[in-house]
Amino acid sequence: MAKDVRVYYPASIRAALEGLTTLPGLGPRSAERMVQHLLSMDTELVIRLADSLRGLVSRVRPCAVCGFYAEIEEAEAVEAKCVFCADARRDSALVCVVEQPQDVVRIESTGAFAGLFHVLGGRISPLDGVGPEDLRIAPLLARIRAGGIGELIFALGGDLEGETTAHYLVDCVSRLGLEHTPKLTRIAQGVPVGSGLEFADAASIQRALGSRTLFED
Amino acid sequence: MAKDVRVYYPASIRAALEGLTTLPGLGPRSAERMVQHLLSMDTELVIRLADSLRGLVSRVRPCAVCGFYAEIEEAEAVEAKCVFCADARRDSALVCVVEQPQDVVRIESTGAFAGLFHVLGGRISPLDGVGPEDLRIAPLLARIRAGGIGELIFALGGDLEGETTAHYLVDCVSRLGLEHTPKLTRIAQGVPVGSGLEFADAASIQRALGSRTLFED
Repeated sequence: MAKDVRVYYPASIRAALEGLTTLPGLGPRSAERMVQHLLSMDTELVIRLADSLRGLVSRVRPCAVCGFYAEIEEAEAVEAKCVFCADARRDSALVCVVEQPQDVVRIESTGAFAGLFHVLGGRISPLDGVGPEDLRIAPLLARIRAGGIGELIFALGGDLEGETTAHYLVDCVSRLGLEHTPKLTRIAQGVPVGSGLEFADAASIQRALGSRTLFED
Repeated sequence: MAKDVRVYYPASIRAALEGLTTLPGLGPRSAERMVQHLLSMDTELVIRLADSLRGLVSRVRPCAVCGFYAEIEEAEAVEAKCVFCADARRDSALVCVVEQPQDVVRIESTGAFAGLFHVLGGRISPLDGVGPEDLRIAPLLARIRAGGIGELIFALGGDLEGETTAHYLVDCVSRLGLEHTPKLTRIAQGVPVGSGLEFADAASIQRALGSRTLFED
Protein backbone atom coordinates (compact mmCIF):
# COMPACT_ATOMS: atom_id res chain seq x y z
CA MET A 1 0.00 0.00 0.00
CA ALA A 2 2.85 2.39 0.80
CA LYS A 3 3.68 2.28 -2.90
CA ASP A 4 0.16 2.80 -4.21
CA VAL A 5 -0.67 5.96 -2.33
CA ARG A 6 1.61 8.07 -4.55
CA VAL A 7 -0.83 7.90 -7.47
CA TYR A 8 -3.18 10.21 -5.59
CA TYR A 9 -0.63 13.03 -5.56
CA PRO A 10 -0.36 15.59 -8.39
CA ALA A 11 2.29 14.84 -11.04
CA SER A 12 4.83 17.36 -9.71
CA ILE A 13 4.70 15.81 -6.25
CA ARG A 14 5.05 12.31 -7.68
CA ALA A 15 8.14 13.46 -9.60
CA ALA A 16 9.67 14.99 -6.48
CA LEU A 17 8.90 11.86 -4.42
CA GLU A 18 10.56 9.73 -7.08
CA GLY A 19 13.63 11.97 -7.18
CA LEU A 20 13.96 12.21 -3.41
CA THR A 21 13.73 8.46 -2.83
CA THR A 22 16.84 7.98 -5.00
CA LEU A 23 18.72 9.63 -2.13
CA PRO A 24 20.24 7.45 0.59
CA GLY A 25 18.22 7.08 3.77
CA LEU A 26 15.03 8.55 2.30
CA GLY A 27 12.17 6.07 2.27
CA PRO A 28 8.69 6.79 0.87
CA ARG A 29 7.39 8.28 4.12
CA SER A 30 10.36 10.54 4.79
CA ALA A 31 10.17 11.67 1.15
CA GLU A 32 6.54 12.67 1.76
CA ARG A 33 7.55 14.64 4.84
CA MET A 34 10.40 16.22 2.87
CA VAL A 35 8.00 17.33 0.13
CA GLN A 36 5.72 18.86 2.74
CA HIS A 37 8.69 20.72 4.20
CA LEU A 38 9.89 21.92 0.78
CA LEU A 39 6.43 23.28 0.02
CA SER A 40 6.45 25.18 3.31
CA MET A 41 9.86 26.70 2.56
CA ASP A 42 10.62 29.98 0.82
CA THR A 43 10.31 29.18 -2.91
CA GLU A 44 13.55 31.02 -3.64
CA LEU A 45 15.46 28.69 -1.30
CA VAL A 46 14.13 25.58 -3.01
CA ILE A 47 15.00 26.97 -6.45
CA ARG A 48 18.49 27.70 -5.17
CA LEU A 49 18.78 24.15 -3.82
CA ALA A 50 17.64 22.75 -7.20
CA ASP A 51 20.19 24.90 -9.03
CA SER A 52 22.95 23.88 -6.65
CA LEU A 53 22.27 20.20 -7.39
CA ARG A 54 22.51 20.92 -11.12
CA GLY A 55 25.75 22.83 -10.57
CA LEU A 56 27.13 20.02 -8.47
CA VAL A 57 26.88 17.37 -11.15
CA SER A 58 27.75 19.65 -14.05
CA ARG A 59 30.77 21.43 -12.56
CA VAL A 60 32.37 19.04 -10.06
CA ARG A 61 34.75 16.30 -11.21
CA PRO A 62 37.26 14.18 -9.31
CA CYS A 63 40.75 15.73 -9.49
CA ALA A 64 42.69 13.84 -12.15
CA VAL A 65 45.71 13.69 -9.83
CA CYS A 66 44.49 13.10 -6.30
CA GLY A 67 40.79 12.29 -6.54
CA PHE A 68 39.59 15.20 -4.42
CA TYR A 69 36.82 17.43 -5.82
CA ALA A 70 37.75 19.77 -8.67
CA GLU A 71 35.57 22.51 -10.12
CA ILE A 72 35.41 22.93 -13.90
CA GLU A 73 33.62 25.28 -16.28
CA GLU A 74 30.53 23.51 -17.54
CA ALA A 75 31.66 23.13 -21.17
CA GLU A 76 35.24 22.29 -20.32
CA ALA A 77 36.43 18.84 -21.23
CA VAL A 78 40.01 19.16 -19.94
CA GLU A 79 41.32 17.11 -17.06
CA ALA A 80 40.32 18.75 -13.83
CA LYS A 81 42.79 19.58 -11.06
CA CYS A 82 41.76 20.42 -7.50
CA VAL A 83 42.93 23.60 -5.74
CA PHE A 84 45.62 21.67 -3.85
CA CYS A 85 47.18 19.91 -6.86
CA ALA A 86 47.00 23.15 -8.85
CA ASP A 87 48.83 25.10 -6.15
CA ALA A 88 52.59 25.13 -6.92
CA ARG A 89 53.40 26.48 -3.44
CA ARG A 90 52.38 23.24 -1.75
CA ASP A 91 54.97 20.62 -0.87
CA SER A 92 54.57 17.98 -3.57
CA ALA A 93 57.11 15.71 -1.86
CA LEU A 94 54.64 15.10 0.95
CA VAL A 95 51.46 13.13 0.13
CA CYS A 96 48.75 12.32 2.62
CA VAL A 97 46.61 9.29 1.75
CA VAL A 98 43.00 9.45 2.97
CA GLU A 99 39.83 7.44 2.47
CA GLN A 100 37.30 10.12 1.52
CA PRO A 101 37.21 13.67 0.14
CA GLN A 102 35.76 14.78 3.50
CA ASP A 103 39.01 13.71 5.18
CA VAL A 104 40.92 16.16 2.97
CA VAL A 105 38.99 19.18 4.22
CA ARG A 106 39.27 18.00 7.82
CA ILE A 107 43.05 17.70 7.59
CA GLU A 108 43.35 20.95 5.65
CA SER A 109 41.28 22.82 8.23
CA THR A 110 43.88 22.05 10.91
CA GLY A 111 46.38 24.20 9.02
CA ALA A 112 49.04 21.64 10.02
CA PHE A 113 49.62 20.15 6.57
CA ALA A 114 50.94 21.84 3.44
CA GLY A 115 51.55 18.80 1.20
CA LEU A 116 49.30 17.12 -1.34
CA PHE A 117 46.60 14.51 -0.88
CA HIS A 118 45.52 11.24 -2.36
CA VAL A 119 41.90 10.17 -1.96
CA LEU A 120 41.37 6.40 -2.18
CA GLY A 121 37.60 6.67 -2.34
CA GLY A 122 37.06 4.17 0.47
CA ARG A 123 38.87 1.37 2.24
CA ILE A 124 39.26 -2.34 1.66
CA SER A 125 36.21 -3.97 3.23
CA PRO A 126 35.30 -7.44 1.97
CA LEU A 127 32.07 -7.40 4.01
CA ASP A 128 30.90 -4.35 2.02
CA GLY A 129 32.18 -5.86 -1.21
CA VAL A 130 34.96 -3.27 -1.53
CA GLY A 131 38.22 -4.74 -2.82
CA PRO A 132 41.54 -3.04 -3.70
CA GLU A 133 40.42 -2.76 -7.33
CA ASP A 134 37.56 -0.48 -6.25
CA LEU A 135 39.95 2.09 -4.78
CA ARG A 136 42.22 4.65 -6.45
CA ILE A 137 45.32 2.57 -5.68
CA ALA A 138 46.72 2.30 -9.24
CA PRO A 139 46.82 6.14 -9.61
CA LEU A 140 48.62 6.35 -6.25
CA LEU A 141 51.25 3.83 -7.32
CA ALA A 142 51.64 5.72 -10.61
CA ARG A 143 52.27 8.94 -8.66
CA ILE A 144 54.91 7.18 -6.55
CA ARG A 145 56.55 5.60 -9.59
CA ALA A 146 56.71 9.01 -11.27
CA GLY A 147 59.07 10.05 -8.45
CA GLY A 148 59.38 13.17 -6.32
CA ILE A 149 57.44 11.87 -3.32
CA GLY A 150 59.63 11.81 -0.22
CA GLU A 151 57.02 10.81 2.35
CA LEU A 152 53.66 9.11 2.18
CA ILE A 153 51.47 9.71 5.25
CA PHE A 154 48.63 7.26 5.78
CA ALA A 155 45.71 9.03 7.43
CA LEU A 156 43.23 6.17 7.25
CA GLY A 157 40.61 5.11 9.75
CA GLY A 158 41.79 3.48 12.95
CA ASP A 159 39.43 0.55 12.50
CA LEU A 160 40.16 -2.89 11.08
CA GLU A 161 39.38 -1.86 7.49
CA GLY A 162 41.63 1.20 7.71
CA GLU A 163 44.46 -0.92 9.10
CA THR A 164 44.00 -3.57 6.41
CA THR A 165 44.06 -0.92 3.70
CA ALA A 166 47.22 0.70 5.08
CA HIS A 167 49.01 -2.63 5.22
CA TYR A 168 47.90 -3.51 1.72
CA LEU A 169 49.25 -0.18 0.43
CA VAL A 170 52.57 -0.56 2.25
CA ASP A 171 52.87 -3.97 0.56
CA CYS A 172 52.08 -2.50 -2.85
CA VAL A 173 54.65 0.26 -2.45
CA SER A 174 57.43 -2.08 -1.36
CA ARG A 175 56.64 -4.41 -4.26
CA LEU A 176 57.23 -1.53 -6.69
CA GLY A 177 60.94 -2.18 -6.08
CA LEU A 178 61.88 1.47 -6.45
CA GLU A 179 65.42 2.77 -5.93
CA HIS A 180 64.07 5.59 -3.75
CA THR A 181 61.04 4.34 -1.85
CA PRO A 182 59.19 7.17 -0.07
CA LYS A 183 59.21 7.16 3.71
CA LEU A 184 55.93 5.54 4.81
CA THR A 185 54.34 7.02 7.93
CA ARG A 186 50.96 6.96 9.63
CA ILE A 187 49.13 9.50 11.78
CA ALA A 188 49.37 8.89 15.51
CA GLN A 189 46.66 7.10 17.43
CA GLY A 190 45.99 7.75 21.10
CA VAL A 191 43.60 9.53 23.44
CA PRO A 192 41.78 12.58 22.09
CA VAL A 193 43.22 16.02 22.83
CA GLY A 194 41.28 18.13 25.32
CA SER A 195 39.20 15.32 26.76
CA GLY A 196 39.47 13.22 29.91
CA LEU A 197 40.50 9.57 29.96
CA GLU A 198 37.00 8.62 31.04
CA PHE A 199 35.78 9.31 27.48
CA ALA A 200 38.52 7.31 25.74
CA ASP A 201 37.97 3.69 24.77
CA ALA A 202 40.27 0.95 26.04
CA ALA A 203 41.91 0.35 22.66
CA SER A 204 42.85 4.03 22.33
CA ILE A 205 44.26 4.13 25.85
CA GLN A 206 46.24 0.96 25.17
CA ARG A 207 47.62 2.47 21.96
CA ALA A 208 48.38 5.74 23.75
CA LEU A 209 50.37 3.87 26.41
CA GLY A 210 52.28 1.84 23.85
CA SER A 211 53.14 4.92 21.78
CA ARG A 212 54.04 7.12 24.78
CA THR A 213 56.57 9.85 24.08
CA LEU A 214 59.23 11.65 26.16
CA PHE A 215 58.34 15.01 27.61
CA GLU A 216 60.11 17.62 25.54
CA ASP A 217 61.61 20.74 27.10
CA MET B 1 35.41 23.58 13.21
CA ALA B 2 32.56 21.75 11.54
CA LYS B 3 31.56 25.08 10.01
CA ASP B 4 35.00 26.12 8.81
CA VAL B 5 35.82 23.01 6.80
CA ARG B 6 33.40 23.97 4.04
CA VAL B 7 35.68 26.73 2.75
CA TYR B 8 38.07 24.08 1.42
CA TYR B 9 35.43 22.70 -0.95
CA PRO B 10 34.93 24.04 -4.48
CA ALA B 11 32.18 26.66 -4.89
CA SER B 12 29.65 24.26 -6.42
CA ILE B 13 29.99 21.89 -3.49
CA ARG B 14 29.67 24.73 -0.98
CA ALA B 15 26.46 25.83 -2.72
CA ALA B 16 25.06 22.29 -2.58
CA LEU B 17 26.02 21.89 1.08
CA GLU B 18 24.29 25.17 1.87
CA GLY B 19 21.16 24.14 -0.01
CA LEU B 20 21.02 20.66 1.50
CA THR B 21 21.39 21.85 5.09
CA THR B 22 18.19 23.89 4.72
CA LEU B 23 16.42 20.51 4.64
CA PRO B 24 15.12 19.04 7.89
CA GLY B 25 17.32 16.45 9.54
CA LEU B 26 20.37 17.18 7.39
CA GLY B 27 23.30 18.43 9.44
CA PRO B 28 26.67 19.48 7.99
CA ARG B 29 28.09 15.94 8.04
CA SER B 30 25.10 14.23 6.48
CA ALA B 31 25.06 16.97 3.82
CA GLU B 32 28.68 16.09 3.02
CA ARG B 33 27.77 12.43 2.70
CA MET B 34 24.76 13.36 0.57
CA VAL B 35 26.99 15.39 -1.78
CA GLN B 36 29.33 12.44 -2.10
CA HIS B 37 26.40 10.21 -2.93
CA LEU B 38 24.98 12.68 -5.47
CA LEU B 39 28.36 12.85 -7.22
CA SER B 40 28.46 9.06 -7.43
CA MET B 41 24.96 8.94 -8.94
CA ASP B 42 24.02 8.97 -12.60
CA THR B 43 24.14 12.67 -13.60
CA GLU B 44 20.81 12.38 -15.38
CA LEU B 45 19.10 11.27 -12.16
CA VAL B 46 20.44 14.25 -10.21
CA ILE B 47 19.34 16.66 -12.96
CA ARG B 48 15.90 15.05 -12.85
CA LEU B 49 15.80 15.46 -9.05
CA ALA B 50 16.80 19.13 -9.38
CA ASP B 51 14.09 19.72 -11.98
CA SER B 52 11.49 17.96 -9.85
CA LEU B 53 12.25 20.30 -6.94
CA ARG B 54 11.79 23.31 -9.23
CA GLY B 55 8.52 21.84 -10.53
CA LEU B 56 7.35 21.19 -7.00
CA VAL B 57 7.53 24.79 -5.84
CA SER B 58 6.44 26.31 -9.14
CA ARG B 59 3.47 24.08 -9.89
CA VAL B 60 2.07 22.89 -6.55
CA ARG B 61 -0.25 25.07 -4.47
CA PRO B 62 -2.62 24.27 -1.63
CA CYS B 63 -6.14 23.64 -2.92
CA ALA B 64 -8.16 26.80 -2.34
CA VAL B 65 -11.05 24.72 -1.00
CA CYS B 66 -9.66 21.86 1.06
CA GLY B 67 -5.93 22.56 1.49
CA PHE B 68 -4.73 19.38 -0.23
CA TYR B 69 -2.11 19.70 -2.98
CA ALA B 70 -3.24 21.16 -6.29
CA GLU B 71 -1.22 21.29 -9.50
CA ILE B 72 -1.28 24.48 -11.58
CA GLU B 73 0.30 25.58 -14.84
CA GLU B 74 3.40 27.60 -14.03
CA ALA B 75 2.13 30.98 -15.23
CA GLU B 76 -1.38 30.51 -13.89
CA ALA B 77 -2.50 32.83 -11.15
CA VAL B 78 -6.01 31.46 -10.69
CA GLU B 79 -7.12 29.76 -7.50
CA ALA B 80 -6.02 26.17 -7.57
CA LYS B 81 -8.38 23.24 -6.96
CA CYS B 82 -7.21 19.72 -6.17
CA VAL B 83 -8.40 16.68 -8.14
CA PHE B 84 -10.93 15.81 -5.45
CA CYS B 85 -12.56 19.24 -5.15
CA ALA B 86 -12.57 19.56 -8.95
CA ASP B 87 -14.35 16.22 -9.39
CA ALA B 88 -18.12 16.79 -9.58
CA ARG B 89 -18.82 13.06 -9.19
CA ARG B 90 -17.63 13.05 -5.59
CA ASP B 91 -20.11 13.37 -2.74
CA SER B 92 -19.76 16.98 -1.62
CA ALA B 93 -22.14 16.39 1.30
CA LEU B 94 -19.51 14.23 2.99
CA VAL B 95 -16.34 15.94 4.22
CA CYS B 96 -13.48 14.14 5.94
CA VAL B 97 -11.29 16.33 8.16
CA VAL B 98 -7.63 15.28 8.38
CA GLU B 99 -4.44 16.71 9.81
CA GLN B 100 -2.03 16.44 6.88
CA PRO B 101 -2.10 16.08 3.08
CA GLN B 102 -0.53 12.62 3.52
CA ASP B 103 -3.67 11.52 5.38
CA VAL B 104 -5.74 12.32 2.31
CA VAL B 105 -3.83 9.90 0.09
CA ARG B 106 -3.92 7.20 2.76
CA ILE B 107 -7.70 7.45 3.11
CA GLU B 108 -8.18 7.70 -0.65
CA SER B 109 -6.06 4.62 -1.26
CA THR B 110 -8.52 2.51 0.74
CA GLY B 111 -11.16 3.16 -1.90
CA ALA B 112 -13.70 3.36 0.94
CA PHE B 113 -14.40 7.08 0.75
CA ALA B 114 -15.93 9.09 -2.08
CA GLY B 115 -16.52 12.42 -0.35
CA LEU B 116 -14.35 15.51 -0.10
CA PHE B 117 -11.54 16.35 2.31
CA HIS B 118 -10.45 19.17 4.52
CA VAL B 119 -6.78 19.39 5.50
CA LEU B 120 -6.17 21.28 8.74
CA GLY B 121 -2.40 21.41 8.25
CA GLY B 122 -1.68 20.03 11.73
CA ARG B 123 -3.33 19.66 15.08
CA ILE B 124 -3.63 21.82 18.17
CA SER B 125 -0.47 21.24 20.18
CA PRO B 126 0.47 23.94 22.69
CA LEU B 127 3.79 22.18 23.41
CA ASP B 128 4.79 22.63 19.76
CA GLY B 129 3.40 26.16 19.72
CA VAL B 130 0.54 25.20 17.38
CA GLY B 131 -2.74 26.92 18.27
CA PRO B 132 -6.14 26.86 16.51
CA GLU B 133 -5.19 30.02 14.59
CA ASP B 134 -2.34 28.11 12.89
CA LEU B 135 -4.74 25.59 11.37
CA ARG B 136 -7.16 25.87 8.45
CA ILE B 137 -10.14 26.04 10.80
CA ALA B 138 -11.70 29.27 9.50
CA PRO B 139 -11.93 27.90 5.92
CA LEU B 140 -13.59 24.75 7.31
CA LEU B 141 -16.19 26.77 9.21
CA ALA B 142 -16.77 28.84 6.07
CA ARG B 143 -17.41 25.65 4.09
CA ILE B 144 -19.90 24.48 6.73
CA ARG B 145 -21.63 27.86 6.87
CA ALA B 146 -21.98 27.82 3.07
CA GLY B 147 -24.23 24.78 3.50
CA GLY B 148 -24.54 21.48 1.69
CA ILE B 149 -22.43 19.41 4.09
CA GLY B 150 -24.47 16.60 5.63
CA GLU B 151 -21.72 14.84 7.55
CA LEU B 152 -18.32 15.85 8.84
CA ILE B 153 -16.02 12.90 9.57
CA PHE B 154 -13.10 13.60 11.87
CA ALA B 155 -10.14 11.40 10.88
CA LEU B 156 -7.60 12.92 13.25
CA GLY B 157 -4.83 11.23 15.19
CA GLY B 158 -5.84 9.06 18.15
CA ASP B 159 -3.42 10.85 20.45
CA LEU B 160 -4.11 13.65 22.93
CA GLU B 161 -3.52 16.40 20.37
CA GLY B 162 -5.84 14.79 17.83
CA GLU B 163 -8.57 14.42 20.48
CA THR B 164 -8.13 18.01 21.61
CA THR B 165 -8.38 19.25 18.03
CA ALA B 166 -11.51 17.20 17.35
CA HIS B 167 -13.24 18.52 20.48
CA TYR B 168 -12.23 22.07 19.63
CA LEU B 169 -13.73 21.70 16.15
CA VAL B 170 -16.96 20.16 17.47
CA ASP B 171 -17.24 23.19 19.77
CA CYS B 172 -16.65 25.59 16.90
CA VAL B 173 -19.27 23.93 14.72
CA SER B 174 -21.94 23.94 17.43
CA ARG B 175 -21.22 27.60 18.18
CA LEU B 176 -21.99 28.45 14.54
CA GLY B 177 -25.67 28.11 15.58
CA LEU B 178 -26.73 26.77 12.20
CA GLU B 179 -30.25 25.61 11.44
CA HIS B 180 -28.91 22.43 9.84
CA THR B 181 -25.75 21.37 11.65
CA PRO B 182 -23.93 18.57 9.81
CA LYS B 183 -23.75 15.19 11.52
CA LEU B 184 -20.40 15.04 13.31
CA THR B 185 -18.69 11.65 13.30
CA ARG B 186 -15.25 10.22 13.98
CA ILE B 187 -13.39 7.23 12.57
CA ALA B 188 -13.49 4.16 14.80
CA GLN B 189 -10.66 3.31 17.15
CA GLY B 190 -9.86 -0.24 18.19
CA VAL B 191 -7.46 -3.08 17.56
CA PRO B 192 -5.74 -3.19 14.15
CA VAL B 193 -7.25 -5.41 11.48
CA GLY B 194 -5.28 -8.55 10.63
CA SER B 195 -3.11 -8.55 13.72
CA GLY B 196 -3.25 -10.43 17.01
CA LEU B 197 -4.18 -8.86 20.34
CA GLU B 198 -0.60 -9.33 21.53
CA PHE B 199 0.48 -6.46 19.27
CA ALA B 200 -2.26 -4.04 20.38
CA ASP B 201 -1.64 -1.53 23.16
CA ALA B 202 -3.82 -1.49 26.28
CA ALA B 203 -5.57 1.78 25.35
CA SER B 204 -6.61 0.40 21.94
CA ILE B 205 -7.91 -2.82 23.50
CA GLN B 206 -9.83 -0.83 26.10
CA ARG B 207 -11.36 1.32 23.36
CA ALA B 208 -12.13 -1.76 21.26
CA LEU B 209 -13.98 -3.32 24.22
CA GLY B 210 -15.95 -0.16 24.95
CA SER B 211 -16.94 0.28 21.30
CA ARG B 212 -17.79 -3.39 20.72
CA THR B 213 -20.41 -4.07 18.08
CA LEU B 214 -23.01 -6.77 17.51
CA PHE B 215 -22.19 -9.58 15.11
CA GLU B 216 -24.10 -8.93 11.93
CA ASP B 217 -25.60 -11.78 9.93
